[in-house]
Amino acid sequence: MPNKGRGRVMAEKKAETRSEGIDKLVTRRLEEMGKNVVSQIDAQRNPDIILPIRALSNIFFDEHHKIIKLGNKVSHRTYLNVAHTRKFMQTCLVAAECKKIIEQNVTTSIRDLYYAVKRTIPGTEENTVEEQAESDPIIEDIEAALNTLREQLHLVADRKGYVAGPITVVDAGDEIDAARMGSSGWAIPSNVESEIIKFKECSADYVLVIEKDAVWQRLNEDKFWKKNNCLILTGKGQPARGTRRLINRLHRELKLPVYVIADADVWGYYIYSVIKQGSINLSFISDRLGTPEAKFIGLTTQDVNKFNIPKNVTIKLNKGDIKRAQELLNYVWFKPKEWHQEINHMLQVGYKLELEALSAKGIRFISQEYLPQKIGNKEFMP
Amino acid sequence: MPNKGRGRVMAEKKAETRSEGIDKLVTRRLEEMGKNVVSQIDAQRNPDIILPIRALSNIFFDEHHKIIKLGNKVSHRTYLNVAHTRKFMQTCLVAAECKKIIEQNVTTSIRDLYYAVKRTIPGTEENTVEEQAESDPIIEDIEAALNTLREQLHLVADRKGYVAGPITVVDAGDEIDAARMGSSGWAIPSNVESEIIKFKECSADYVLVIEKDAVWQRLNEDKFWKKNNCLILTGKGQPARGTRRLINRLHRELKLPVYVIADADVWGYYIYSVIKQGSINLSFISDRLGTPEAKFIGLTTQDVNKFNIPKNVTIKLNKGDIKRAQELLNYVWFKPKEWHQEINHMLQVGYKLELEALSAKGIRFISQEYLPQKIGNKEFMP
Repeated sequence: MPNKGRGRVMAEKKAETRSEGIDKLVTRRLEEMGKNVVSQIDAQRNPDIILPIRALSNIFFDEHHKIIKLGNKVSHRTYLNVAHTRKFMQTCLVAAECKKIIEQNVTTSIRDLYYAVKRTIPGTEENTVEEQAESDPIIEDIEAALNTLREQLHLVADRKGYVAGPITVVDAGDEIDAARMGSSGWAIPSNVESEIIKFKECSADYVLVIEKDAVWQRLNEDKFWKKNNCLILTGKGQPARGTRRLINRLHRELKLPVYVIADADVWGYYIYSVIKQGSINLSFISDRLGTPEAKFIGLTTQDVNKFNIPKNVTIKLNKGDIKRAQELLNYVWFKPKEWHQEINHMLQVGYKLELEALSAKGIRFISQEYLPQKIGNKEFMP
Repeated sequence: MPNKGRGRVMAEKKAETRSEGIDKLVTRRLEEMGKNVVSQIDAQRNPDIILPIRALSNIFFDEHHKIIKLGNKVSHRTYLNVAHTRKFMQTCLVAAECKKIIEQNVTTSIRDLYYAVKRTIPGTEENTVEEQAESDPIIEDIEAALNTLREQLHLVADRKGYVAGPITVVDAGDEIDAARMGSSGWAIPSNVESEIIKFKECSADYVLVIEKDAVWQRLNEDKFWKKNNCLILTGKGQPARGTRRLINRLHRELKLPVYVIADADVWGYYIYSVIKQGSINLSFISDRLGTPEAKFIGLTTQDVNKFNIPKNVTIKLNKGDIKRAQELLNYVWFKPKEWHQEINHMLQVGYKLELEALSAKGIRFISQEYLPQKIGNKEFMP
């Protein structure tokens, strides 16, 4: 294992709960958006908000940086176009509410924001928003248009995921040592931007990202992170934004290699691909959420023979699995030959398997044999 | 607020990761179960395992202790009854695996256990278990039959939920101060039995249980627990077993009053009822998971007029809501007149509302007005 991590001490000792610099920058961008609209009205022109198109038609795989990226196409949301008027009004309302939240120096959930902007327009029966499904995409529009992050708009989404191992972070003035968190681990917050979460000290050699919390608990109980001087991190299924951003920061800022272990099925492979190159939906921030240098340890269907895993713990592929596997073969980011080989092997043998299947070889097989062999010999998928 | 909690210091300073006493007790009970079967075979009798019936027909509401309880009816699972043979075999297999896990001094998930007992019976095409849905109820059978807990069988279920406030716990030798956990809080582990989680120190006056994590994050950011000297705890929806057990221990051992805040809808009311008197499914451990002295703060549909909440943030009841509300009216534990009044009021006005609806009165309305008024004046539902 490389030893780049050991003994690194981060400089930032002073704890801040919020970065005034970023708040000012984002507030200024929100104000500019509003001032633009006002000056267009003053000039008696049709008010127009320019937004990047966030759809498949404007997505590409950046072969150089190895992430999914948003293209240059934009759309115009104008007030006097009847098809746009409602969304135009909502965009202004959401932007104004975000500015208010930042000024009050509070954080709120995207559901709270929905309730905060919901009202009946005076003299009408019309509500500003009817459902949260209307306000959520407006938030992403504003994020993409202002080149900012939801977290910097003081909005939080769902959080999940845990970390254990030799890292100390500072959060709102509290020092949290993830090597002293018992059976819980450090719970990853919604917002892990550097204004909120400071890395104080880290001596780990790498990060092991584990799809499932039950497997994480198994490895934490065996103190895998202590014996192998690493961080163990779980996203509990598809990782939330905060978890993906944390993996990105651990790699970028602390130079830690990232290894992923997931189920040997199409969802496990997809979770890995989202950690690695980002998602189509949030393509405008793949550089902040994706970690293209991540490697896949396993599980693979080829491990069944390699590790003599009993066949009766494999699960037969269903129609959905087969269809999805064929889709994966067509994604440009699954084109490395090792992935084509694995997916074709899965289709050929007709089964998938979950991480827990390794327990058929004994409760400690994963921590004492499987992971040490794979990581020791660098048996990774790209 | 009563001040019973302040300055209490718990005696147990020595950290243990596992209690040998309980391991021995549970192992002995598992062995007795196995020895019974063997002695029946030796005596050439039909092997018979006696299990409590865990169904509606054997459930009652204990009016004295105010919890849902399991009755005295038992069933016989016998080997030579063809309808029982498969389950008999599975019961023996799961019990043997639990004994092995305790002896190895490890913890495993219920999914791991499923894989550990799954195999093809030699010379046949028959598997011992086909799906996890077969092994999960067997675990509950063994828990109920041996008067033990899943956690004491070293099995973990899903975990979720967080705590912040003035309490220090010891977990596997690590001291965790829930007042120093930044924006995360202390993540509640799967197993919070006293062998694993020791309460070291706690100066809180009460526990505020919050249905939703987003609201918990709002209150944590405002340091509600500091200003009000309490613990804030969220179960993220319906609390997991570990979270319900922790609430029970905080009340029983630290004498903390428990107040619950949830959505004003049938699911919020049901979540409260499970925290308070336990669930039908896990009725055999209601005394360990339920907290009958818990009080409901709100939200109620009657709060809409009381706090002048704008009507446009209420949500119209659907058919499922109405049907479920009528069911709640029939449960004996919803019979206090305040609950009948509230549920009938909900049906009459025809709406429900979520905690986030309070944001329509301002982002800090919940922490600065709603909760202080309700708790200060003890405006609770029973």
